[in-house]
Parts: sequence; structure tokens; C-alpha cells
Amino acid sequence: MNMRRDVVVETQRVQEISDGSSLVRMNLVDMSVKCECVPDTLRFCGGRQLTSRIVSEEVPATCDPLGPKNKVVIAPGLLSHPFIPCSGRASVGAKSPLTGGIKESNVGGTASHSLVRLGIKGLILEGGRPTGGPFIIRITPDAISVLNASDMAGLTNYDLVKNLRDEFGSQVTVMSVGPAGERLLPIATMAVTDTHGYPSRHAGRGGLGAVLGSKGIKAIVLEPPRRSASSTDNLVGSKELRLVAKDWAISISKAKKTLTTYGTANLVNTINLLGGLPTRNFSSGRFEEADAISGETLSRLIAERGGRSGHPCHPGCAIRCSNVYVDGDGKYLTSALEYETLALIGANCGISDLDAIAMADRRCDELGIDTMETGDTIAVAMEAGLAQFGDADAMLNLVEEVAKGTVLGRLLGQGVSVAGKVLGITRIPAVKGQGMSAYDPRVFKGTGVTYATSPMGADHTAGNCLPGRGGLVPENRGGLDCDKPEGQWHLSRDVQILTTVCDVLGLCFFVGTTLKNLETMALLLSHVSGRDWNVDDLMEAGRDTLKVETDFNYHAGVGPWQNQLPDYFRIEALPPTGLVFDVPQEEMDRTTEY
Amino acid sequence: MNMRRDVVVETQRVQEISDGSSLVRMNLVDMSVKCECVPDTLRFCGGRQLTSRIVSEEVPATCDPLGPKNKVVIAPGLLSHPFIPCSGRASVGAKSPLTGGIKESNVGGTASHSLVRLGIKGLILEGGRPTGGPFIIRITPDAISVLNASDMAGLTNYDLVKNLRDEFGSQVTVMSVGPAGERLLPIATMAVTDTHGYPSRHAGRGGLGAVLGSKGIKAIVLEPPRRSASSTDNLVGSKELRLVAKDWAISISKAKKTLTTYGTANLVNTINLLGGLPTRNFSSGRFEEADAISGETLSRLIAERGGRSGHPCHPGCAIRCSNVYVDGDGKYLTSALEYETLALIGANCGISDLDAIAMADRRCDELGIDTMETGDTIAVAMEAGLAQFGDADAMLNLVEEVAKGTVLGRLLGQGVSVAGKVLGITRIPAVKGQGMSAYDPRVFKGTGVTYATSPMGADHTAGNCLPGRGGLVPENRGGLDCDKPEGQWHLSRDVQILTTVCDVLGLCFFVGTTLKNLETMALLLSHVSGRDWNVDDLMEAGRDTLKVETDFNYHAGVGPWQNQLPDYFRIEALPPTGLVFDVPQEEMDRTTEY
Repeated sequence: MNMRRDVVVETQRVQEISDGSSLVRMNLVDMSVKCECVPDTLRFCGGRQLTSRIVSEEVPATCDPLGPKNKVVIAPGLLSHPFIPCSGRASVGAKSPLTGGIKESNVGGTASHSLVRLGIKGLILEGGRPTGGPFIIRITPDAISVLNASDMAGLTNYDLVKNLRDEFGSQVTVMSVGPAGERLLPIATMAVTDTHGYPSRHAGRGGLGAVLGSKGIKAIVLEPPRRSASSTDNLVGSKELRLVAKDWAISISKAKKTLTTYGTANLVNTINLLGGLPTRNFSSGRFEEADAISGETLSRLIAERGGRSGHPCHPGCAIRCSNVYVDGDGKYLTSALEYETLALIGANCGISDLDAIAMADRRCDELGIDTMETGDTIAVAMEAGLAQFGDADAMLNLVEEVAKGTVLGRLLGQGVSVAGKVLGITRIPAVKGQGMSAYDPRVFKGTGVTYATSPMGADHTAGNCLPGRGGLVPENRGGLDCDKPEGQWHLSRDVQILTTVCDVLGLCFFVGTTLKNLETMALLLSHVSGRDWNVDDLMEAGRDTLKVETDFNYHAGVGPWQNQLPDYFRIEALPPTGLVFDVPQEEMDRTTEY
Repeated sequence: MNMRRDVVVETQRVQEISDGSSLVRMNLVDMSVKCECVPDTLRFCGGRQLTSRIVSEEVPATCDPLGPKNKVVIAPGLLSHPFIPCSGRASVGAKSPLTGGIKESNVGGTASHSLVRLGIKGLILEGGRPTGGPFIIRITPDAISVLNASDMAGLTNYDLVKNLRDEFGSQVTVMSVGPAGERLLPIATMAVTDTHGYPSRHAGRGGLGAVLGSKGIKAIVLEPPRRSASSTDNLVGSKELRLVAKDWAISISKAKKTLTTYGTANLVNTINLLGGLPTRNFSSGRFEEADAISGETLSRLIAERGGRSGHPCHPGCAIRCSNVYVDGDGKYLTSALEYETLALIGANCGISDLDAIAMADRRCDELGIDTMETGDTIAVAMEAGLAQFGDADAMLNLVEEVAKGTVLGRLLGQGVSVAGKVLGITRIPAVKGQGMSAYDPRVFKGTGVTYATSPMGADHTAGNCLPGRGGLVPENRGGLDCDKPEGQWHLSRDVQILTTVCDVLGLCFFVGTTLKNLETMALLLSHVSGRDWNVDDLMEAGRDTLKVETDFNYHAGVGPWQNQLPDYFRIEALPPTGLVFDVPQEEMDRTTEY
């Protein structure tokens, strides 16, 4: 394997720093590869805390996100270990070309565990765009190489990964950028291969694929050792630890049966019923054709066609909320078709054709663009008259404009905030340059507070206050009415902290952040990290991360003045509930009180 | 006259507040028109100090610049009086859709004196976009009316003004927006008629035409009383005052003969020789065909064809730097063809065809778009491959895209910062969202400091440190070498303050800010304002204005983190001088020390 590809540089890895405490730092301009021991200050940081701290310390806040001073940091969480359930999340951090602030984009798939098995605590990609290229970075237990991949320039993620698996074997994990990342579009993602080897998991938000593209990187190929290799012995864990993890997996599995059966698409009917399903560019909260794109319809269709529900995005997931969507002939089309994609490419564009939405999802994964930002953007393009709401073919054609790289495609590739402005639309559902997720903030007011105040921009993965989700203090442990303004600022702040804890640990937020679960996390972390942790310590890691991010943003010019929703959410009543967003702005101006 | 047009609302003016101390406040949503006495705090404020103070006090810093909370304030300067030379400048202020910060855009023509003769110290336009419309505001000595102008929607400034002069008489002053302002493009201007009645003077920078458009205003028609009318008797001035003004006019006229002969175009050869003429998207500082667009060539051609040099933009100008450019048949084409247009639509696009540049200037005036921002934007479009540098037809076609309102036209209408980003260009000559004027900051380092630190964005009219221009302190009164980094921060700050003084007074900066001239300004102002002024008082008005603007910007999120030039000016040596911008960033971080 790898016989025909030019190796530009190859560095042997030093065994002593391949034990899980090493940072790998690469710069393709001077083709330098360094393995560094993690400094003491970062020793107990992982995932989002590690990426945000490194970005904050090393990246000038005012730099061009697509210039040579930005850095991409990729890190598994502190609990990312093959035997801990739902621990396959990796954090990707950088200054975002979409928001202009710091970004952590979280991704499932096989990357997190592969990095851990390679003994890598963090991968730092720095420097400008090298001449030639693009390049592939290949990491094995023994060596790190930079390979010329000019033959792969412009390939979609699916074609690229197929080629790389042919070349390096089907066991590899691939992190990659599609044509959108190569073209530095701010909606570009970093794709990660799933358990089937498809590039279907994406660090989707914030345009971090463009930052990778700006470093001349097309793909990072991870070839972890087999599980029996001695260098990964420390990952097996003690017998007690394995028992705790196993019990926890069983308990998670029991609690999350709906997610296993219907996937995140189970939310379509719920959110629609509550009147918060973004429909036709956030002009209604209820979509009359919602049933056609619901989790129930989706899982029935998948079953009929021989696809798969209850599919794990990484080995060891106890929830398995993913699915494999196949076409009418039973042929693989995409994975996973998720709630946010169904809502934003579907309802928000007035579209109820599952096959069309699935095809758009596949094309987004191929091009390496965020399905949420894409759905938001196409909806404003529809409002601007470039297509009719409900016209699935027109929607797919707009995605193809991005593929073709036309001026219109480049415009759509900027995301909803820029595209909406250029097209003269005033109803733009975005905060800090980032499009909203699929929860209308007039109904989901805590999520609205998160959109407005999170250092991440309008991102539900920063703290989604769905009904029943509780905060830290006893009085809102059971959650609040999502559509009442009272208490939402506190709830949002608490859920932001809890979400960040999961991001630091590399856990899927779906495990649930009950006090009992937090205690289990602390216990597991005490076992694997070499020091004692309690729940307060976890909270402190979450708070510290948010403070570091907020501070970076302040110096980047993404300050408290941007902690607000677009005016129209406060003025325009959302049918059918008639609600407006009415959490007092004064509350949202309290930005640093994490 | 005005027989056939619907009068939506008409308010009689109260004589007592038409004496030069009244603020007129209008809102076309509820069709309210109020004449207010100026509050004591604003009594001695005029021009830019008045616009910036009112915007700062009344406009929420974080509001949507094109939304209902923004306001446009139009004000003549404190010395704007028909008998004071070079005093025909008006300030237009608002939150800018281009920079996101506060903006004062300064304009010549007949507006300033007409407002003074109508007894209006400031015109405040507020509220959202009314239904119907667009509307015309007509102000006579007796009444203020709002007229329906739906028949004039979409008209170019030239066609609009022709119609309005037919309807209201040729003596009117018209302030108007073209199709670009109606479409809310952030490069839209507010046009003002000149002494011939052509809409050839523009408050060009910052997109304030779009803010007027967002209020549903197509034009403001000013019908001042004839000079003999009793209400303007106070404008005649004392005999002593008239003597001082007359002497000053003679002295200015003597000192500025080059400007009278060649216009601002006299700078083409000078700036080219110094190596700071932006050429092909700021990739060179010398244009091999500069002579073809020089002031010498231009004035010769104008003379041959029967156009006019030495043309005043308003009555009473002692400098008369404007010109009337006629085509090969001697027919009026445009006025004035200025240095910045010649440099940015010419050299910066690689174009040396004067007729093509004049036609572009005319089309920009017709559409109501800033020639500087347009030139910058077309050059990045050329760098992105949408046209070849030097292709005059392609340049004109790109202007026509704006006229047609295509997606590409809307993109170009955003200005260089957004268009460059969308088109994937990294070399974007802009600060705070606004394109640079025609002075490469690697050669004109003080102007570079102004670009970086001014609350106005990259705007030479905020403080252009050309060779020989001096600051406030004796050691740089005689100016510095423009291409050395030492002392430039202080020089820029001083020139920014001096420029602001002129903006507050309504004087053209070309009068020169020597100490003697400043003393004359203070003397004249003491005569007309009813209190004593000295030079320090003038400086304090300038400083106060800059502080108010800087403070507004901070709260709008346009803070010190944006006080920098794009990286490439520090890295990329400019041919042929090989200079980079090397004023230490630490100096430019000193933002509030006005």
C-alpha cells in the first residue's frame, strides 16, 4: 500500500510520547512535524477545553480565519475510550470563518477513538497554505507522513474516502474536506468516516473545513494499532472500570429507546406539535406536511427499503440514534438523516420529499457543507425569489450551484448571514454570522438564549433547552416550560455548561446530564485520568472552557453587543402559537457569568 | 407646479423655529413631521458633530443599519453660509450598513447652503420603511410636505432630478437616492445637485443612500427662499465679517491654483511618482499608463472638447477643483472626474481609457453608488477572474450588473469587503468593511494609520496624510516623510482632528488647516454663532466628535480589534518602492486618544 504516492515528509514517532499525552503539531508550509509532550497546564484538559485553550493561547484573536495565523486543533475528549459508551466524540477547534469568533465543532464517527488509540491527545495544524498540494496527513503508530494528494484535488468526500480506503485499507479512519473546504467556503465541514467507512459524520458548524482547506489539507488518514497492540494496553482499563462502564451502557440504552428506534427524527412531530418547527424561512412553526418527514415515516420507509435504523455512529455507542437511508432500489444513499437536516432542508424550505432531502444530505456530505447552514441559506434564497418554497428540484439545483462553484454557489457557500444580506433579505435567522438550528427561538426560548449568548453563535449543540432538560439548580432541575421567558437565561447557561462538560469529555450529549450520570462520568474519569474528579470539577472544566471562549471572542470583536437575536423574532408573532421571543435583552447582556 | 402629485402630508412651518436653530424630524411610517428647537447641548454643534451626536444619542449601537431604529441626520456645518468661501459641505450621518459603525459622509453641491437658507440646522429622518412609496420630501420656507413618488421608483438620479426640476423648478436643490439606494445596497450614495442642477455630488462613503432607501425616501427637494427674503437676512452678515470672508477667499484662491487648473486629478502623476497609486487591486503602486489619466491629460482633453475645468461644486467656492467632462461631441457626460475615481476605477482596474472611466463615473452617479467602493470591488472581481485587468468594456459591464440587480450585481453592490470574501479573494483592501481610497498605505503611512484607526473605516476623507500636511504640534507642523513609519500615528491623529474640524464647520478640507486659517475660522465662527471661539475650541469640537464616534463604534462591536490593516499590507512589498506598511500595531491600538 501507498506505493505510488509521493511522501513529502515522514517523521518517526517517539514511543514515549505516543502514550496518550502527546500533542502532534504540523505545519505544511515548512513541512514540519513535531510530537510534543502536553504541558502541565493542559494535562487534564481534553476535547473542547483543549481545543479552545490552545486556540485561545496560540491564535491571535484578530487574525484572518483563513490566513496563516489561524490553527486547527483536533482532540478526543477526556473520556474518549473504546470501552466507555457514547464516548466517540471529537472536538475540532479554530477561529471560525463563519462567526469570526472561536469555534468548537463536535463530531462523531471513528476519529475520536482512533486518535486515542494512536496516543494522540491533540492534533494541531498550523501555518499557511503550502504551495502544491493538497496534501494528506497519514498517522500510524510508527510514523507521521505528509503525502502529496494533488491527484485528489476537488474530489468529493465519498470519492476521496473510497480512494483512500483502496490505498490504505478499509480499517482506516479518514478526516477530510470536500470541494467546499478546498474552496474555503465558510459553510465547509470536516468529514469523519463512520463505522461503515462512509464520510457521513461532519464537524459541521462554523466552517472549520475551510480552515483545514486553508492549510492545504485534503485528508488526515488515521491507522490506529489493532486492539491487542501493546501501546494501547492502557486503554483496556481496570476490571472495576469496565464494570461501571458496562452498567452505564445498559442504563443509557434503556433510557434512550425512542432515539434508537426513530433517531433524532423523532423530534419532527414533537417540535411541530409545539409549533417550533422552522417552516419556510422561519415564517411558521408548524409544517402542514411534517408527517411526511417525521421519524415514524422515516423509520418505516427505511425498514421497507432494507436500510437501517438503530445504527451506531461509532463502536460502543449505547444509543445508536443514526440510520442508513437507502433509495427505492435499496441502495445506500446517505447516513444519517437527522432531525436538523429534515427540518432545515425540509420544512424550512417547504419540502416534504424524503428522497430529495436525503439526496441533498448526501450531496452536502459529498461537498463537505453543513446541512443546517445549507438549509437556512436555501430558504433565504427562496424568500429572495431564487426558487419557490417546496420546489425540491430547485433546492437540489441550488446545492449544485455550490458544487459547480458559480458566483451564486460561492454566495450560498457563505452561509445564511452573508447570503441573506447580499440577496436583500431582512429576515435572516442567524446570530454572530451563523445560521440557527432547527428550533424556533420564539417557542424554544432557552435555546433562543443559547443562540444569542453562546460563544458559538446560533448553535443548538451549544446548549439546546428542549422541554424537560434541566439546569444545575434544584428549582429548574426538572426543566421549565420552553415557551415561557422566565428562568430561561439561567436554564440556557446551565445547559451550556452541561453541554460543554460533555464536549470536554468526548461524550455524546444524549447520554443525559442527570446528577447520577454526572457522578458516573466523574467516577469513570477518575479511573482513566490519574486524578480524582467530582461533579464540581466537571462543571469547572465546562465553565473554564466557556470563559476562555467568551474572552477570545471579545478580543476578536465578537462581543456582548452581538448577544441578541435578529429583531424580527421579537416583533413577528410565529404562527400558529403567536409567540414572540421575549426573554429580556438585559438578561442576555449578562455574558460572562458562566 | 406640483399639481399632479399626491401630497401625503403637509406641515406648515413655524416662523420662530425657522431661524437656523431648528431640527426637522420626520418619520414616514406615521407620516409625522416635527420642527424642534435645537436643545442647548447641541446649540453650538454643526455638521459632523451634530450628526454624530444625534446618531450616538438616538440610534441603538447594535441595531440593524437598514432597520427602523437607524436614523439619517443631514446637517450643514457651523460655517455653512453663502458668503463664507468653501463652506458648502453638508454632513450626512447614520449607522453605516457598510462598516456597521457610525458614519459621517461629507458632500458638496448646493445642499448645505440651501438647508441654511431654509433655517434648518439638522434634518432627522427616522422610522422604518413605509408602505407604498417611495416618497419625496419637499421643504419650502413655508411648509414641509411628503409627496408620493411611486412613479419615480427605480429612476436613476439623473432622470429623477430632471423630472423634479421640471416639476418644481430649476432652482431647487435635490438630495436623492438612485436604484442602488432603493435596493438597500451598502455602496449606495446620497446624491446632491451641483450648481448646474446635475446630481453629481455624492455623500459617497458608507452606504448612507441605502439607509435613506430603507426609510422609503427617494428624494428631498429643497426650495430655499430667494436671498432677499427676510428670513435669511441674518445670513448676510456684518460688514466686518464680509471683509474677513472676502480676504480669506482671495488668499485661498491664490494658494490653490493647481487645484483650480487640474482639479484633484493633479494627484495622479504625483501619487504615481511616489509609487502609491493603487494599480491592479493594490498589487503595484505605479501604473505604466498613468499619464493617460493624469490631471494634465484630463484638463487638456476637457479644454479641447469644450468642457470645463475650474468649476465650483457650490456657489462661493474659492478653489473650484471640479470639472465638467464632455464626450467627443462636446456633450455633457459627467462631473466631476476626480482623482479617487481615476485611480480606483482607472489604475486599480488597469484601465487608462478616460472616456470609459468617465462613463463609469456617470453610471455610478446615475445608480447612486460610490465610485471608490465600486473601483475597489471591480478590481477584486478582476482578481477573481470575472474580468481581465485593463478591460474597460468588462468593467462597464460589471457596473451594469449592479444596474440590472442580478445576483452578481447585488454582490458587487455590497462593496469590496463582502464581494472579495465571497469571490474567495484574500487580498481585500478594506478596513472595517469599507474599501480603501486611492492611497496605498504602504507608501502613505499616515493615511494607512487613518484607514486603520478612524471610526469611519478606510476613508481618506477622515484624515489624508499627504506629503506636506502637518499636524498640531510644532515638530510635525511641516509634515513628515509620508513613507517612513515614525510619527505617523501622531500625524494621522492630528490630521483626523483637523479634518473633523472642517467637517464640523462645513468647510472643504482643501482650504488648508494652517494655524492662520484655523484662526480665521474661529474669527468667522465667533461672528456668526453668537459666542467667542478660539482655535482650541475648534480642536475640542473635532476631538469631541471623534470620541463620540469611537464610543458608538465600540458599542456597535466595531472596536479596537478592527484597528488594523489587512495582513498583506505588512507582508507584501509594493512595487516599485518595495515598501510594506510598518507602523507598529501597538501604536494603532491606541484608539481613544483623540
